[in-house]
Amino acid sequence: MSPRVTPPRRRATLSDIAVRLGVSKAAVSFALNGRPGVSEELREQVLAVAAELHYRPSSAALALGGSRADVIGLVLNRPARTLGTEAFFPELMAGIQAGLAPTHTGLQTLVVASLAEEVDAYRTWQATQRVDGVILIDPRRDDERVALVAELGLPAVQIGSHPSLDPTVPTVWVDDHEVATRLFDAMFALGHRRVGYVMGPLDLEHTELRRQAFHDCVGRYDAGTPVSVETDYSAEQSAAATLDLLRRDDRPSALVYDNDVMALAGLRVAQEEGVTVPRELSIASFDDSIAMRLVRPSITALTRDTYALGELAARTLMQVVTAAGSEAMVGSVAGMTPTLSVRESTAPSLDAQG
Amino acid sequence: MSPRVTPPRRRATLSDIAVRLGVSKAAVSFALNGRPGVSEELREQVLAVAAELHYRPSSAALALGGSRADVIGLVLNRPARTLGTEAFFPELMAGIQAGLAPTHTGLQTLVVASLAEEVDAYRTWQATQRVDGVILIDPRRDDERVALVAELGLPAVQIGSHPSLDPTVPTVWVDDHEVATRLFDAMFALGHRRVGYVMGPLDLEHTELRRQAFHDCVGRYDAGTPVSVETDYSAEQSAAATLDLLRRDDRPSALVYDNDVMALAGLRVAQEEGVTVPRELSIASFDDSIAMRLVRPSITALTRDTYALGELAARTLMQVVTAAGSEAMVGSVAGMTPTLSVRESTAPSLDAQG
Repeated sequence: MSPRVTPPRRRATLSDIAVRLGVSKAAVSFALNGRPGVSEELREQVLAVAAELHYRPSSAALALGGSRADVIGLVLNRPARTLGTEAFFPELMAGIQAGLAPTHTGLQTLVVASLAEEVDAYRTWQATQRVDGVILIDPRRDDERVALVAELGLPAVQIGSHPSLDPTVPTVWVDDHEVATRLFDAMFALGHRRVGYVMGPLDLEHTELRRQAFHDCVGRYDAGTPVSVETDYSAEQSAAATLDLLRRDDRPSALVYDNDVMALAGLRVAQEEGVTVPRELSIASFDDSIAMRLVRPSITALTRDTYALGELAARTLMQVVTAAGSEAMVGSVAGMTPTLSVRESTAPSLDAQG
Repeated sequence: MSPRVTPPRRRATLSDIAVRLGVSKAAVSFALNGRPGVSEELREQVLAVAAELHYRPSSAALALGGSRADVIGLVLNRPARTLGTEAFFPELMAGIQAGLAPTHTGLQTLVVASLAEEVDAYRTWQATQRVDGVILIDPRRDDERVALVAELGLPAVQIGSHPSLDPTVPTVWVDDHEVATRLFDAMFALGHRRVGYVMGPLDLEHTELRRQAFHDCVGRYDAGTPVSVETDYSAEQSAAATLDLLRRDDRPSALVYDNDVMALAGLRVAQEEGVTVPRELSIASFDDSIAMRLVRPSITALTRDTYALGELAARTLMQVVTAAGSEAMVGSVAGMTPTLSVRESTAPSLDAQG
């Protein structure tokens, strides 16, 4: 990159990027459109220069009187083949679309396998003006995405656990510590003191908040050392963790699972081990699903309106899109708090009864 | 619409549509972009004239050297809040994205509540050049969609039960009659003669093919009158149908369900009625899911690689998109045949053993 060329003050064009990198306009165009025939290295250089020059293509939408793509983007960073196992994603997507409908805006989805691919998608979408904004899900500890979209100027809303710290990226939030406290408290209130918690990945912010709530509860009830196991959300790791917990001398009398699939896997292991649910073991899940209601015994779970959450996130994002470029700021919004659906899988502790 | 104006031979412009309808260019632009402030009636007129004149906007993609949107569309015509109950959709979407990845093409999804809305989406997408093509799912009897996309010139691939009759819209197909025969045959081979079939909606083509296969099997085994019940795929209707069947004097010794949620609901009803599965009642499902493997008894099901089906459909669609405008034709492709996963819920008939 030659330092002799100063960035132009007028609106940047394809030519500006081409001159800056010493390549053809066609190469820049191909790179911006993600077409084959351009090296990955050049593509990254083009995107970097485009971002630096605040390049915006003269799109059809502009020509027709609007500057929008009328599409928003959602990146799902999960192994593609396991997406179908959780009800969360399709429910969230359906809700998002309901929230977008009044503004005639579409939803583009992208399944990626890593945070690097996710970040790359935001850069490309912004450089090519493919989407008007994005919804960020699964906040992580030390999450780089909020700072990235803010820097890119890509309108965004995050679904998270607390109001946003960055005023340019509002959060649609549910207090996960409070919600988790409600679930764990319900188990302790049934007299359980040996409660085990089968967790999802700890690099997700809400897992850490739930674990803190668990530790707080254990401390409040003076119930010894908290017993928790980290997993990858899979049925396999849940089954292994459950088997290990049930074969301990101080077997838990209650197990709480971070999602519905893990609760189902845990119930099966308990049944195979001859541990009666709920008489000898209570089971509860942080996620509800139709299987939680239909399995026998049906499983106590936190019921959240994921559809409504998606709808709220979409409506908030469209406010951010509308406010973009103006002085207006859109604030974070509290989502509906989940409710506890008590079912057949939880009962008073035998210890408490005895 | 005035018959005095002949369609122009040059490339149609916004002005042509505006003149034809006697409205402003801005109104046409707003209508084409689906923005508020234009009556539904005018919007439909604009879309109709745009289609008639083969109007194509001069898009950013065109300006940058390509004529593609680099996005394909998928319309899901199901009640939004029930999308999360079936694993089929997210798995299909993930597979489609894998198939699109090599061509750097995105996926836009739209959840609609009726066939009319679905048809409207294809018209709008084509008129505004929002997508390069679409994947049609859930073929119906007397399906108007294939003729529509062919007429619109919108590249499309259908996921269906047989090779396409329309050479411009190839099918990625699985022979549903053959697959269903395999499942029903397996039940009769266990000695069951009183087999009940809890179906999905009969206006879906594959439901009708499965029912024909069921009737053929019942006839081949000389097993009396076929017993089948039509439902809306819901757990509620499955539970009601199961209860009705189990309380008959000639109670079936085997029940086959059209999806996983209905099989789960049926199993619960049997357990509540004190009917032992599989000793007194065998249960099988046309759809597999993680719950089918984790529930106790685990449920025998047809396992299909929905991810691979989506990938194949996407790759075939990109061939159609590439061939569009040329003489080349893309043929229909057979997808992978599902396999029967035999699990704990099926056993030999007591009648056959006695």
